[in-house]
Amino acid sequence: MAKKLLEYLEKLKGLDLGAMYNEDFLLTWEKTDDELAGVFTVADALRRLRELNISARIFDSGLGVSLFRDNSTRTRFSFASACNFLGLAVQDLDEGKSQIAHGETVRETANMISFMADVIGIRDDMYIGKGNTYMREVSKAVRQGRQDGVLEQVPVLVNLQCDIDHPTQCLADMLHMLNQAGGAENLKGKKIAMTWAYSPSYGKPLSVPQGVIGLMSRFGLEVVLAHPEGYEVMPEVEEIARKQARDSGGSFRKTNSMAEAFAEADFVYPKSWAPFAAMEKRTDLYAAGDGEGIKALEKELLAENARHQDWCCTEELMKTTREGRALYLHCLPADINGISCREGEVEASVFDRYRTPLYKQASYKPYIIAAMIFLAKCKDPQKTLAVLAERDSQRWLRP
Amino acid sequence: MAKKLLEYLEKLKGLDLGAMYNEDFLLTWEKTDDELAGVFTVADALRRLRELNISARIFDSGLGVSLFRDNSTRTRFSFASACNFLGLAVQDLDEGKSQIAHGETVRETANMISFMADVIGIRDDMYIGKGNTYMREVSKAVRQGRQDGVLEQVPVLVNLQCDIDHPTQCLADMLHMLNQAGGAENLKGKKIAMTWAYSPSYGKPLSVPQGVIGLMSRFGLEVVLAHPEGYEVMPEVEEIARKQARDSGGSFRKTNSMAEAFAEADFVYPKSWAPFAAMEKRTDLYAAGDGEGIKALEKELLAENARHQDWCCTEELMKTTREGRALYLHCLPADINGISCREGEVEASVFDRYRTPLYKQASYKPYIIAAMIFLAKCKDPQKTLAVLAERDSQRWLRP
Amino acid sequence: MAKKLLEYLEKLKGLDLGAMYNEDFLLTWEKTDDELAGVFTVADALRRLRELNISARIFDSGLGVSLFRDNSTRTRFSFASACNFLGLAVQDLDEGKSQIAHGETVRETANMISFMADVIGIRDDMYIGKGNTYMREVSKAVRQGRQDGVLEQVPVLVNLQCDIDHPTQCLADMLHMLNQAGGAENLKGKKIAMTWAYSPSYGKPLSVPQGVIGLMSRFGLEVVLAHPEGYEVMPEVEEIARKQARDSGGSFRKTNSMAEAFAEADFVYPKSWAPFAAMEKRTDLYAAGDGEGIKALEKELLAENARHQDWCCTEELMKTTREGRALYLHCLPADINGISCREGEVEASVFDRYRTPLYKQASYKPYIIAAMIFLAKCKDPQKTLAVLAERDSQRWLRP
Repeated sequence: MAKKLLEYLEKLKGLDLGAMYNEDFLLTWEKTDDELAGVFTVADALRRLRELNISARIFDSGLGVSLFRDNSTRTRFSFASACNFLGLAVQDLDEGKSQIAHGETVRETANMISFMADVIGIRDDMYIGKGNTYMREVSKAVRQGRQDGVLEQVPVLVNLQCDIDHPTQCLADMLHMLNQAGGAENLKGKKIAMTWAYSPSYGKPLSVPQGVIGLMSRFGLEVVLAHPEGYEVMPEVEEIARKQARDSGGSFRKTNSMAEAFAEADFVYPKSWAPFAAMEKRTDLYAAGDGEGIKALEKELLAENARHQDWCCTEELMKTTREGRALYLHCLPADINGISCREGEVEASVFDRYRTPLYKQASYKPYIIAAMIFLAKCKDPQKTLAVLAERDSQRWLRP
Repeated sequence: MAKKLLEYLEKLKGLDLGAMYNEDFLLTWEKTDDELAGVFTVADALRRLRELNISARIFDSGLGVSLFRDNSTRTRFSFASACNFLGLAVQDLDEGKSQIAHGETVRETANMISFMADVIGIRDDMYIGKGNTYMREVSKAVRQGRQDGVLEQVPVLVNLQCDIDHPTQCLADMLHMLNQAGGAENLKGKKIAMTWAYSPSYGKPLSVPQGVIGLMSRFGLEVVLAHPEGYEVMPEVEEIARKQARDSGGSFRKTNSMAEAFAEADFVYPKSWAPFAAMEKRTDLYAAGDGEGIKALEKELLAENARHQDWCCTEELMKTTREGRALYLHCLPADINGISCREGEVEASVFDRYRTPLYKQASYKPYIIAAMIFLAKCKDPQKTLAVLAERDSQRWLRP
Repeated sequence: MAKKLLEYLEKLKGLDLGAMYNEDFLLTWEKTDDELAGVFTVADALRRLRELNISARIFDSGLGVSLFRDNSTRTRFSFASACNFLGLAVQDLDEGKSQIAHGETVRETANMISFMADVIGIRDDMYIGKGNTYMREVSKAVRQGRQDGVLEQVPVLVNLQCDIDHPTQCLADMLHMLNQAGGAENLKGKKIAMTWAYSPSYGKPLSVPQGVIGLMSRFGLEVVLAHPEGYEVMPEVEEIARKQARDSGGSFRKTNSMAEAFAEADFVYPKSWAPFAAMEKRTDLYAAGDGEGIKALEKELLAENARHQDWCCTEELMKTTREGRALYLHCLPADINGISCREGEVEASVFDRYRTPLYKQASYKPYIIAAMIFLAKCKDPQKTLAVLAERDSQRWLRP
C-alpha cells in the first residue's frame, strides 16, 4: 500500500468517529474536534487515492440528490464530483429560489425523492431562519420514513450552504490553511482577518463569514471579524466563536476597521456580505409577499454598501500584513476591481498574485464533500479506506 | 442464497414471461395475468436484493432516456432510481409541454437519442389521443431503426403516464394492496371505490382512474367508479374494465354517488380528474391554436368543479367503509383541506392517518419500473436474478 | 478474441498516435492523417465492442463535462452516450447562449468545473471568432491548473461544434462515406458537392460546410463548394482545403451554380448556412450591444435568403448526379419541403429515399466522440482495446 495512505490510516486510528455514521453534516460546531480531523484526514486520503489512480467507489449504484434553492455552478460541480468519485449518480431537484416550502410538503417530497437516495446535498441560503431549518425538516422526514419502512436506507444530508453556515466551503478553506501551514500546530497564535469588503452587488449570504468564525475559532487562532457598523452577523454565531476561541487558547474579537484587522495578519479573507438585520427584514417582506418593500430595501442596501467602497483588499493593505505576505483567501468568485466590476472586494494585482493558492483552496471542496459522505456512510472508515487501497482497482484503466 | 429470494424465484418459475423480452410496457390490459404477476414478483425480488445490499446492476453502461412532456418530480425520481439501480445512466430529454410533435420529427428524434439507449421512459399525458399514440410512434421508429442497422440495440419503452393509462402508478398501487392483503387470493370479493374528488385545480389527467379500473378489475374485486355527472372517463376503458371484471369473477359498476361507492369499501381512491369530453375539446382547441377558447374552457371547467366541493374524502365518509377502516389510496400529491388548499380531495385528519401507508404505496414505484425494465431486458429473468444473488456483489461497500 | 476486432488492432499497429495522448481535438486539420485514421479505426472498434456486448469502460468514475452555449439535443445525446460508454458521468454546464465570457472568468470557471473532469465537450458556434478561441482559453486554463497542482488530471477538450469546424459531425460523415465506399482507396477521384441550400430560418452556423471542405479535401476527392454569391465561408478554411486537396491528389474548387456542383457528383451535401461576412457583422453588433442592429441584420439576411429559394436538392438535380445515385448527406435536422417548412433544403421524396443512410450517418457520431476521448485518454490505445477485448466484461448481463 502506498506509504502516504498508511499515514492517513494511522491518523484515523486515534480519532473517535463513531457518531458520524448515518449522521448529517449541518454545522461545523455540532461536530467534535475528532470529527473535523476525520473529515480533513479522509479528504486528504481520498485525494491521495485519486492521485494514485485507485477507485474510491464505495457504491455500485445509488443516488446523490442535489437540492439547490439558489443558482450555483461551483458547488453543484463539487457535489457532483464527490458523489461520482464514490459511485453515486447525481439527480438534481430544482425547486426554484422563490419557493419556501412548508411542513407537510417538505415531509412528503423528502420521502418521494429518497427511495434510492444515499445522500442529499442541500443549498438554501437565501432567507434567514429558513435554510438550516429546512434541512432539519428534510432530515427528520427521511429518518421517519426509514423508521416507517418507507425507505430502504436513510439518506444523510450534507449542508452545501445555508443561512447560518457553509461547512463544505469553510472546511475546504481550513484544509487549505492546514496544508499551507504544515499542520494544526503551526496555526496556533496565527492571526486571521475575516473582513467585510465592498461589492456593487446586493445581498450576498452571511454563511461564509459566519462559517469562518464558527470554525476557525477552534484552532487557537487569533480571529478578527471586521465590518462597517451595521453589517453585523448573527449574534449566536459570534457567541459560539467567542466560546470556542476561549477553549482553544485563541481569541475572537470584532472591529470596525479593516486596517486594524489586516495589521500583522497571517490570513486575510475579505468578502462582501449583507447585514444580518437587513436579511431578516427581507425574509419578513418576502413572507408577507411585499415585492415593493423588497425593492425598496434592495435600493437602500445598495446605497449603504456604496458608502463603504474603501473596504477593499488593496496592495497597500496587504503590505501591512505579516511580512506583507498574508495568505489571501476567498470562496470565489470574487469581485475584482477593473475585472468583474469597477470597484469591488480586491485589487486585481492582489487577486492575480494569489490565483494559484485560491484555485488550490477551491480544489479541496469536492474532497471535503466526499469525506463527509464517506464518514456518514462507512461504519468503519479506516477499514473501508484500507479495503479500497488493497482492492487497488484502477479509476482510469491504464494497462 | 437468501431464503426470501428463493421464494420469488419459485414464483417466477410458473409464469410465462417470454413475450415480455424486448417488448414495451404501454397499457396494463395488453399484458397477461402471468406478465403482471411477473412484474410484481420481480419488483419484490429487486426490493429484497436492495435490502440485502446486493447489486442489481445488469448494465455496466447504457442510457435510460427520460422523455417528459409534462412537469414531474416524483415520476422523474422513480425512473431515475430504477435506471440507476440496474446500472443505466439517465439522460433527460425535455421537449416542453406545449409541443405536439408530428410523424417524421418523432421518427428522427427517436433514433437520434437512441444510439446507446436501452430504455426510454415517456410521460405524455396532456392531450387526449396524443400521449399513447406518441409512444407507439417512438416505439415503431426505434424498432425500424434497429432493423435498418441504425441502432445497435432496441430501446424498450416504459409508459410513465399517458392519456389512457398510468401503469407504473397503478401497478405500484396494486402491489401495495397485494402486500397489505397478503396475496391476490385475499383480494377476491373486496370492494374498491375509485371516486372523483374535488380539487381547486384544473385538468388533472384521467390516466389514474382509467388505469385503476383497467387494472383492478382483473383481480376479482368489486370495482366501483364514482363521479359527478359529466366527469366520465374514456368509454373504451370502461368497456375493458367491464369485460375483465366479468372474466375475473369480480364486478365493475358506475355511480354518481360518492357515498354509495364508499359504503363498505375495503379500499378507497378519491382523486380529482377532468371530464374526458372536456379534455378532448381542449385537445381540439389546442390543435387549432385557439388560446382564447382554451382559457374560456378552463374557466368553465373550474366553475363546474366548484359545484362539486362536497366530493371530499371526509372522516364521516371513511366511517361508512368496511369497519370504518378502508385503506385510503392516492397517487400523491393530494389536495388536502386546509393544507395544500382550502377545500380539496381529502380531510387533513384522514390523510394524516394514512400517511405511512401512502408513502409505502409510493415507494413501490421505482421497483415496479425497475421490474418492467428487467423483464424487457432479460431473456431469462429467473436465471438473471439467480445470477445476481449468487454474484452477491455489494451495492454499498460494507467491509 | 473476435476476429473483427483483431482487424482493427492490426490497423492501429501501423499508425502513429502518440501525440494524441492528453491532447484536445479542436480542428481536423490540426491532426495528421494517421490520427484521423486512428479516430475512424477506434470508432469502428468501439462499435464492434458494443455489438459484441463487451464493456468499453475505461473509467470507473470521472466526469465528462458538457458545456453547451447553444441549444442542442442530438449532440448532447451523442456526447452523453460516448461518455457513458467509456464510464464517465455527464455533468452539464449551461451558460446560456447570450453570454460571451472573458479571459479571467473563463480561466476560473474552467478550473472550478474540472477538479474531477476527464473530458470537457464544448459547443459554441454562435459568434465568429469566439467559439474556437473560447475552447483554447479553456484548454490553456486547465493545463495551467494541472501544472499548478490545482487539478489532479488534465481534462481534454472535444470540440462539439465551434465557429470554424464541426469535427465530430464531419468525421462521422466521413466514416459513413468510408464505410459506404468500402475504404479510403475507393474514394479517390470521387466527387463531393458541398452546396448551400435555401432555408427559411436564419443564421445557421458555418461550421459544417467549413468542416466538410477542411476534412474531405484530404482524401483525394474532387471537392466542390457551391453557394450563391455573398455566402462565402471563412477564407482561411478555403485556403486549407485548397492546399490539402493539392497534397492528396484531389481538387478543391468553388462555384456559384448548384447544378454544376451536382453534375456527376458521387456525394451531395446540400445545407443552409449564413454568410461569413454577415456573421462577423452580427458578432460585432452583439459585442456593441446593438439589439436594433441585430434585428435589422436578421431581416436583411432573411430577405437575401429568400432570393435563393431555387437552391433546393430536388429530384431533378439528383438525376444529374453519377448514375442519378449520389449519396445524399446531411447533418440533420434538414429543412424538408412540405414537412418541416414550405420551401427548404431538400424535396421530401429525396430525403425519404435516403432516410436510412442518413440515420446511419448520424449513428457514427457517438462512436467518433468516444474514439476522440479514448485516444486522448489512453497512452496505448491498441493495448487498451486488446485488454478490453480480453477482459470481455458484459455490457449488458446476459447469463
